[in-house]
Amino acid sequence: MLFEAVPNFSEARDEQKISRITEAVRAVPGVRVLDLHSDPDHNRTVLTFAGEEDAVLAGAVALARACAAELDLSVQTGQHPRMGVLDVLPFVPLEAATMEDAVRLARRAGELLGALGFPVYLYGAAATSAHRRDLPDVRRGGYEGVASRIDHPSWRPDHGPAGLDPRLGAVAVGARPFLVAFNAYLDTQDVEVAHAVAREVRERDGGLPALRALGLEVGGRAQVSMNLTDLEKTSIPMALEAVRAAAARRGAAVESTELVGLAPLEAILQTARHYLNLRELEAGHVLEMRLRDVSET
Amino acid sequence: MLFEAVPNFSEARDEQKISRITEAVRAVPGVRVLDLHSDPDHNRTVLTFAGEEDAVLAGAVALARACAAELDLSVQTGQHPRMGVLDVLPFVPLEAATMEDAVRLARRAGELLGALGFPVYLYGAAATSAHRRDLPDVRRGGYEGVASRIDHPSWRPDHGPAGLDPRLGAVAVGARPFLVAFNAYLDTQDVEVAHAVAREVRERDGGLPALRALGLEVGGRAQVSMNLTDLEKTSIPMALEAVRAAAARRGAAVESTELVGLAPLEAILQTARHYLNLRELEAGHVLEMRLRDVSET
Repeated sequence: MLFEAVPNFSEARDEQKISRITEAVRAVPGVRVLDLHSDPDHNRTVLTFAGEEDAVLAGAVALARACAAELDLSVQTGQHPRMGVLDVLPFVPLEAATMEDAVRLARRAGELLGALGFPVYLYGAAATSAHRRDLPDVRRGGYEGVASRIDHPSWRPDHGPAGLDPRLGAVAVGARPFLVAFNAYLDTQDVEVAHAVAREVRERDGGLPALRALGLEVGGRAQVSMNLTDLEKTSIPMALEAVRAAAARRGAAVESTELVGLAPLEAILQTARHYLNLRELEAGHVLEMRLRDVSET
Repeated sequence: MLFEAVPNFSEARDEQKISRITEAVRAVPGVRVLDLHSDPDHNRTVLTFAGEEDAVLAGAVALARACAAELDLSVQTGQHPRMGVLDVLPFVPLEAATMEDAVRLARRAGELLGALGFPVYLYGAAATSAHRRDLPDVRRGGYEGVASRIDHPSWRPDHGPAGLDPRLGAVAVGARPFLVAFNAYLDTQDVEVAHAVAREVRERDGGLPALRALGLEVGGRAQVSMNLTDLEKTSIPMALEAVRAAAARRGAAVESTELVGLAPLEAILQTARHYLNLRELEAGHVLEMRLRDVSET
């Protein structure tokens, strides 16, 4: 049973720190680091690693220790709202694993990170109450938002200290389905256009289902930063075409896009089917997927 | 060292015959049938199988025997020019195998098929002279074309009988790089439009490099049938956009497309990069490709 962990930590400028944090995870037996994506403007790194349950759990603990040793939230700056040095730690079920398995893993990790001194908010499918299910609600206002409500009974951490250490902050630990992170860069510097486009396309404001979107300014460009949480409801081409149309109504265009971290093959196949008007294209039509079957026999 | 064989045989309407021919190949130890694509209009089936050299060779012999037993070219009809019951038999090097390895395999297969009674023309990288290198030259005019020139010294078969059995015809056996077969259906019944589009886009007539194209009528629709022989020179989106533009100049549009047989992952990634304006997308960004690495350790 394989799981993926996709932690976000609040450092993307100091390569030595990033390297030491990553190496701490890589050193855990049974853990395979799949991807590392640092965004200096967000000052945020997304690390993706996978393995069996106990290996991924040990990787998460090693990561939390390294973030506490290397990073200091009180001096950190960046474009992305953040509430802790180890900001978000989602676990994702892969292949034979179910969401229930991922919830169990997230709760075990929450308990251990609490014992290490992190205030832990369980979110997503691992949340302990409905108002803490959505990540944007948990981290609303970033560190300062958490600080303002941590004493309220409905916002006590699930694990760890009841108060905030300004160097560590808090961490959201959760279980969620596989998520595709897809960003569109607009040909304008006006971040208000990105805000307006994000509002128009995202589910929260009546847009496409299973699509989250934020307008940001990244590298002098307005960016629509998206998370696709269910590709059967909204695929990458559907999201992009909605962004292109919403941008065009504001006199802007999409200049380029990026996929952050990993994407399932199906996301790429959907894209090819859409733009080529393909009658049919499945994983079984991809040579490398079929050769895997050959070499396994 | 893995090889792929992608034989085309001249039957796509009698399911029992297709099934018996396919089963003969599947029964060979070490052979894995990857794909089967029957086109009743072309009356032609493309079978894809893979394995180590000796297994693929044994599979090719089993296939040739089954085609000779089941099919009769003298009563066959279909849209596609054909010169034999087993019409074309290309071998493709995969992964660690080189083109030289595939040439050796093709020549071994040619010798064995000649011994079974098939006039064999070696083509592609396995050709024994330059004028027999290109498949369209070898099979020009189909069976009737071969019959008209088989007695000419420069068109003697490389192996097998020097005359044609009208039930069997001849077979082209070759080695070639991986080839993507991609068809575009136009929104017209006028096959002349497909002919004109094919002429405009194909390399032979000054169009895109490494692109072969034919205009056909398939299922009441004009079809541009393409082979992409080097995706680094011409990718699927480049070919499709050229077809769309050439069709538009003639008042037609592409209604849908199809991939025949298998495509390498890179062909799909190129397509996503093109239409999404993606800054970057490699096989390493695809979850399934990375999980393969995880499960192998």
